[in-house]
Amino acid sequence: MSKEQLFIFDTTLRDGAQTQGVDFSVDDKLKIASALDNLGVDYIEGGWPGANPTDTEFFQKKHSFNNAKLTSFGMTKRTGRSADNDPGLSALLNSNTPAVCIVGKSWDFHVDIALGISNEENLENIKETAKHFVKENKEFMFDAEHFFDGYKANPSYALSCLKSAFDEGARWIVLCDTNGGTLPHEVTKIVTEVSKTIPGKNLGIHAHNDTGNAVANSLAAVWAGVRQVQGTINGLGERCGNANLMSLIPTFFLKEDFATNFQLKIKPDNIKKLTECSRLLDEILNRKPNKHLPYVGAAAFSHKGGLHVSAVQKNPKTYEHIDPVEVGNSRNIVVSDQSGKSNIISRLKTIGIEIEESDPKIKKLLDEVKDREFIGYSYDGADASFELLARRIISKIPRYILIKEYDVSVKKDSSGTIVSSAKAQLEVDGEKIMCTGEGNGPVNALDNAIRQNVDRLNKYSKYLKDLKLVDYKVRILNTGTEAITRVSIESTDSKGKNWFTIGVSANIIDASFKALVDSLDYKLFKDKAPASL
Amino acid sequence: MSKEQLFIFDTTLRDGAQTQGVDFSVDDKLKIASALDNLGVDYIEGGWPGANPTDTEFFQKKHSFNNAKLTSFGMTKRTGRSADNDPGLSALLNSNTPAVCIVGKSWDFHVDIALGISNEENLENIKETAKHFVKENKEFMFDAEHFFDGYKANPSYALSCLKSAFDEGARWIVLCDTNGGTLPHEVTKIVTEVSKTIPGKNLGIHAHNDTGNAVANSLAAVWAGVRQVQGTINGLGERCGNANLMSLIPTFFLKEDFATNFQLKIKPDNIKKLTECSRLLDEILNRKPNKHLPYVGAAAFSHKGGLHVSAVQKNPKTYEHIDPVEVGNSRNIVVSDQSGKSNIISRLKTIGIEIEESDPKIKKLLDEVKDREFIGYSYDGADASFELLARRIISKIPRYILIKEYDVSVKKDSSGTIVSSAKAQLEVDGEKIMCTGEGNGPVNALDNAIRQNVDRLNKYSKYLKDLKLVDYKVRILNTGTEAITRVSIESTDSKGKNWFTIGVSANIIDASFKALVDSLDYKLFKDKAPASL
Repeated sequence: MSKEQLFIFDTTLRDGAQTQGVDFSVDDKLKIASALDNLGVDYIEGGWPGANPTDTEFFQKKHSFNNAKLTSFGMTKRTGRSADNDPGLSALLNSNTPAVCIVGKSWDFHVDIALGISNEENLENIKETAKHFVKENKEFMFDAEHFFDGYKANPSYALSCLKSAFDEGARWIVLCDTNGGTLPHEVTKIVTEVSKTIPGKNLGIHAHNDTGNAVANSLAAVWAGVRQVQGTINGLGERCGNANLMSLIPTFFLKEDFATNFQLKIKPDNIKKLTECSRLLDEILNRKPNKHLPYVGAAAFSHKGGLHVSAVQKNPKTYEHIDPVEVGNSRNIVVSDQSGKSNIISRLKTIGIEIEESDPKIKKLLDEVKDREFIGYSYDGADASFELLARRIISKIPRYILIKEYDVSVKKDSSGTIVSSAKAQLEVDGEKIMCTGEGNGPVNALDNAIRQNVDRLNKYSKYLKDLKLVDYKVRILNTGTEAITRVSIESTDSKGKNWFTIGVSANIIDASFKALVDSLDYKLFKDKAPASL
Repeated sequence: MSKEQLFIFDTTLRDGAQTQGVDFSVDDKLKIASALDNLGVDYIEGGWPGANPTDTEFFQKKHSFNNAKLTSFGMTKRTGRSADNDPGLSALLNSNTPAVCIVGKSWDFHVDIALGISNEENLENIKETAKHFVKENKEFMFDAEHFFDGYKANPSYALSCLKSAFDEGARWIVLCDTNGGTLPHEVTKIVTEVSKTIPGKNLGIHAHNDTGNAVANSLAAVWAGVRQVQGTINGLGERCGNANLMSLIPTFFLKEDFATNFQLKIKPDNIKKLTECSRLLDEILNRKPNKHLPYVGAAAFSHKGGLHVSAVQKNPKTYEHIDPVEVGNSRNIVVSDQSGKSNIISRLKTIGIEIEESDPKIKKLLDEVKDREFIGYSYDGADASFELLARRIISKIPRYILIKEYDVSVKKDSSGTIVSSAKAQLEVDGEKIMCTGEGNGPVNALDNAIRQNVDRLNKYSKYLKDLKLVDYKVRILNTGTEAITRVSIESTDSKGKNWFTIGVSANIIDASFKALVDSLDYKLFKDKAPASL
């Protein structure tokens, strides 16, 4: 049986940017777009050129995607103005994207209340806008705002809005549940009716989660004939969010009824990137990932109850609806000490430490990791700090630079000038070296104090010269200014393989310092620098 | 038309307690049970007596509920032991609850792998257990574990498991999607088939959210005939959680197709308690509420995009699927670089500033917001900083404390002791006051320097005494230690209404300082402190 093609349209950068508390920089948008393209979605909606400086700048960048079509978003032309003469439409054309998605009204109540124009004027605006972009050879999509509410209120008018765009050559007519109040059984009924007028292969669904049914509404729409599905990474989006593509994509791929009837452009192997893609977005937003997300959440395959754990150990299928590996996630046995050991052993193996399961050092390392994670460390994302800890407990690690004292200060004077400076006393081969540095902030000053004096660090200079900090992240683990601070640092060097270190302390400067020293130590260790006396 | 009765079964205290990271005390359980009873659910599943000390103690308490039936949970009797002689069943009987919910296998694969008994032995265990409790006049429910997977694998065996309990007088047969992998169209199909054997009025649904469809699966089951719906507050529960009752209950009440066909015991007025009930659970769990929850989330009725805001002002129905007041929630207009004049004007209105749309100060404020957001500010989560900015531009704000100079330092000496100290020069009524403080970190020291000296702040002491910082967040906006830092502070006072301020700078100390000073200023402003000279 030949499978029908399903198209995935990501709107993280447009509708997702409407989420309260989310404000992407141009750089954030570029990173997200690149991850989506690597995943293999069909369309990436980049934003609304002209609506705000970030989106305008994003579209001015040179984009080259391997899989996705970049799509710009805008609204139908204004009444009383020709499409050629509408500055909004010009901004979209100037953005030079292969596809354009234009939102327009399909609910007569909105035409009256929000636009204050006649129903006929609205149809004319849709028609002229579609014609304008089709003439310019754009892949044109009409995003029918409030379609489901509109259809319930006035089905024939709602349909004529769709036809106004479709008859002018729109590739896609997207049925948008803008207010998110439509339920799955209604989607099934309405899409079935609409597909008598517009073929399913030209229909899309854009669902919101205001009743907790965005994913289900998208599935219902596909089941009733729709072939383009819009959504966002992690269900980001205005109010309660959009349909979560991290839930929909694996359902299309892994659940029998969908997998036997449909195919996606996303390659099967890329499904394993979904967990990474989900975490990347949270990292960019610097927010704690929701552990309970379907498929990709850290707790999605966690087993806590004793009966469940023992059954899962006999056969994971007993309490797992899919194999977590298929989406790049992993199983997590919350209570078992034994599983902790085997995790540690397998992780040690990857860094080249072979050790017997019965070695008491394993227990010591496990206890140390548990104790440290309890106070806020997290070794999941800090490979270099974990390796240093493991080597300190299990084998040995040379002594390099000692940094026992430091003094960091930030002063603002009455002219408003801010000076951040740092002193650090290093010890190498018994010799004490006082280093000083300034920077944009206290951590930068401390970093500069240590590393701008690299020439004075005797035998270590050559190893540290190419070290570069590429990312610095702060997370406050409790509440209040007296909370625990976790600092993560990502470092790189001329060899191009990045490493990650972590520091935890009640004091943000001390936490940063710990992560920084781990980064230096790791660099010296991996480049086989000689030990200090 | 007479409406059919729907029954709500809450399992927050049993399945919800299986959530990773959740660990209820007996006291927590009592509080939650009382909130659920006040809301008016039909059944409260309190836990598994005998399985752990907390649950055992919970059932030993005297409970008197006005609306709900307390239900205890357990599993079918063991093979090779009579029901009368099974200590697990005795613990349930001793818990003296009017209703009992017993889980048992309905998937032959599980009977074999997890229990290691024959299919016939399993049927016998179900039958004898049902008979045992029915004889004791308990309202008996059979929770058919993995029913949907079992039905797909071996429909006749799965059905015979249900019949074994039903034929002995079980009031409810609960169809449990234990692994959460079943999709709504499958639920519809399977429930329709099952209801030919067991009447819908005796069927329940227990859905998990592993594909993001727990709510939709529950709705599909009701639509196909089921009359008892199980779920938890906020969708708490193992792995990805259970069906969220905070989404289902308002859907049953407020959405036309359900409201015209079904009625609940929950009184219409109590629907307004849902937001409060949702927040209570997060408070007990000491976790930040998910702003994006359907119906009850703080952002569920937030409007950020400019076009949406101007329409909502004309008529909220334009972008709201229900009136937020119906569930005890409220509307929220967000200001950001996505927003236009209408957002600003409506937000100004909520803080008591009336201004004409044509006033050039609106444009000035909007430009200032956009410029600041471009360099890293984000006003959508910083209501107090926005209000101060707006008042500084549009009207006037009194001059309070001036803080022109500060000096913050963190020193670590060779003994490992870390001291964070801060000096700040304040000016009040022309008088210069030098304040010093120490703290766990530089920001805490600065906060202490200013506020521990509150008695010396002359006329401001009484206003600042009850100010408390409740949250402190850091976000690094670019990469590298030289990046821009955004600090957000949440503050509160004895009046209990929290406010949010923000500071942005290349220097983390300076960013923190700005957010801190905005918090003090806002507190002085809102409490109508007199201006400084």
